[in-house]
Amino acid sequence: MGFMRKLRVSAERNNSLLCIGLDPDHDRLPAGVTMAQFNRAIIDATSDVVCAYKPNLAFYEVDGADGLRALEQTLAAIPEDIPVIGDAKRGDIGNTARQYAKALFESFNFDAATVNPYLGLDSVEPFIAYPDKCTFLLCRTSNPGAKDFQDLMIRGQPLYEHVAFKALEWNIHGNIGLVAGATYPQDLARIRQLCPAMPLLVPGVGTQGGDVRAVVRLSADASGMNAIINISRAVLYASAGADFAEAARNAALRLRDEINKHRPVG
Amino acid sequence: MGFMRKLRVSAERNNSLLCIGLDPDHDRLPAGVTMAQFNRAIIDATSDVVCAYKPNLAFYEVDGADGLRALEQTLAAIPEDIPVIGDAKRGDIGNTARQYAKALFESFNFDAATVNPYLGLDSVEPFIAYPDKCTFLLCRTSNPGAKDFQDLMIRGQPLYEHVAFKALEWNIHGNIGLVAGATYPQDLARIRQLCPAMPLLVPGVGTQGGDVRAVVRLSADASGMNAIINISRAVLYASAGADFAEAARNAALRLRDEINKHRPVG
Repeated sequence: MGFMRKLRVSAERNNSLLCIGLDPDHDRLPAGVTMAQFNRAIIDATSDVVCAYKPNLAFYEVDGADGLRALEQTLAAIPEDIPVIGDAKRGDIGNTARQYAKALFESFNFDAATVNPYLGLDSVEPFIAYPDKCTFLLCRTSNPGAKDFQDLMIRGQPLYEHVAFKALEWNIHGNIGLVAGATYPQDLARIRQLCPAMPLLVPGVGTQGGDVRAVVRLSADASGMNAIINISRAVLYASAGADFAEAARNAALRLRDEINKHRPVG
Repeated sequence: MGFMRKLRVSAERNNSLLCIGLDPDHDRLPAGVTMAQFNRAIIDATSDVVCAYKPNLAFYEVDGADGLRALEQTLAAIPEDIPVIGDAKRGDIGNTARQYAKALFESFNFDAATVNPYLGLDSVEPFIAYPDKCTFLLCRTSNPGAKDFQDLMIRGQPLYEHVAFKALEWNIHGNIGLVAGATYPQDLARIRQLCPAMPLLVPGVGTQGGDVRAVVRLSADASGMNAIINISRAVLYASAGADFAEAARNAALRLRDEINKHRPVG
């Protein structure tokens, strides 16, 4: 099943736009719990509450080959019917991008991946060539440094809007999405206006400070769908103790319901 | 020893600006030879001819955890005194970029890494915080799609020049370099003009078609140093047979000497 349909089915079944970022940080794991064990407990406690999971590869690569093994074990623990986004933010020349796309979509079998647009079309093409996978291009990211380049004005419009226009132009297979940070609500609104039907991956709620109400209203499409609200630390580390999985479930339930309060009715 | 000094010593000892990209492609490896075996043979045949090696992580990640194990074995085969650039083109928000920097500079112990600038300062800071490591920001890449965003004009200057200006501004530790593709000689010249003392990592000679003479004259600094001319496929696959390592050595010697013909005399 392609990503778009898989996402719709899981979002409807779990009545959820919440995506949990599986970013296990060694400094914050409960004592004696491995990355793979931590993730499995989080997944078991939340898989009926989310629309998707999003492991960020940085947190695995830090352990080298062992870390990628933990990632493989994590992916095996995710129920088949929940879509998984590989947050890798890769970007390289065509010949190399083909290897990255193969790594993410075949070796790890992610349903979607994030891609950095700075290298242009031939760096993106190998990803969108997989029609059943979704490629989320970084558009307006959630971090303070986003302004350094993404806000630079080009013919009256910021760079990130040019990325959105290119995403529309390149979307011949209908499998492109955009990353739009929750911390810049006006920019998020502008991106949704430019791309009314694209799935938006929205990080930045929770620890990063994005406001849930504004974010949901501005990122969901007219039917209240197609927004993937990612939260990592506020769920994963809801408790630092042995009850971390139960605390994560409670945090996820609360966030899912808070998000649903503000969804447009489809 | 810090990257800058290590690079100078290896470039002087081997009288070379040639960097070999260790990008083993499954479709092109000789029959029955593993990635790690292939790399080790290439390294053994060329380590007295290069100034640096540059493995691109895509070619390893395609094999998942096993691929990173092959990368670890490859790194162990490189002589201690040759600097190694981890070509990963990472870029993520600060909290995540710290994990990527730790992965590349501690877990894999690369001497340098490539970083995508699209996310701005807080995505770059965790890398430049390692004073002995070098961070090469993507400035003007060698691929056709580079023009899609990097050439967009902002206040009379293309985006890639704004990246160069930011690199100068952020270079408080003196450990930033730039990636400048060989396939756009005028842009390469402009980047060297803006950043006369920065190390430039120059991909795109060889299979991608960049002209050696122009590239060397435009990228080396006034003393004929600080340019790292990367070549991958034209060396790795000089022969498809059992003599691949010998053929790679011959190709590397020829390229090193061709590069040296055009170096400014220091």
